[in-house]
Amino acid sequence: MSNIQALPLLEPAPGEAVVPCCPPLTERPFTAEEAETAARMFKALGDPVRLRLFSAVASHEGGEACVCDISDVGVSQPTVSHHLKKLKEAGLLTSERRGTWVYYRVEPSVLAAMGRLLTGVVPTV
Amino acid sequence: MSNIQALPLLEPAPGEAVVPCCPPLTERPFTAEEAETAARMFKALGDPVRLRLFSAVASHEGGEACVCDISDVGVSQPTVSHHLKKLKEAGLLTSERRGTWVYYRVEPSVLAAMGRLLTGVVPTV
Repeated sequence: MSNIQALPLLEPAPGEAVVPCCPPLTERPFTAEEAETAARMFKALGDPVRLRLFSAVASHEGGEACVCDISDVGVSQPTVSHHLKKLKEAGLLTSERRGTWVYYRVEPSVLAAMGRLLTGVVPTV
Repeated sequence: MSNIQALPLLEPAPGEAVVPCCPPLTERPFTAEEAETAARMFKALGDPVRLRLFSAVASHEGGEACVCDISDVGVSQPTVSHHLKKLKEAGLLTSERRGTWVYYRVEPSVLAAMGRLLTGVVPTV
């Protein structure tokens, strides 16, 4: 077992993103807790429809989109909403209601942290 | 629908890695085919035990390990072998038999491509 201290996990407040926890995969074996946290994020992207929706939000103008903008993936709007909720629960999206619609936004710090976990490189964006 | 041509997918030969397919998530909405390919890799990392084994291989001396090196995650050796097989099928690990043992190695190009997909940055390792 490693005696390196895991970085503290920040419990997300409702509507807030999870702050990822983990060192690069190549640095040392993950602890069980680190693996739980990181696997939740990877699992959220491990569904093709969810990944299409996520890239639709991520690539939408201004880095945000409402359900009305991204219903072009061949599934019903309730299914779209269900998947967006899953992405939000995993800390990959944040949301904000404005009038009739809920707008979803990609959490860039989470993508950067996942990228670092995979490659060991901190992207400078 | 986008008229941008997807990069060709290379079908993996037995024992070879999948070459990832996809542009950065923020560039444009993924096509169904791109999402299928990328989701398969994310799904492979979306299980805590599998992710621990993967980081155990990735962080092992020389970037490779056999089952005998990484059985310290609290599951049986057949379960370890099962998860390693899944990671291999997803193109994240390659394997090579040497004598009694099969050695697994992380495919750095796949990690780099997944990192680029998430962050838009090509890591220079």
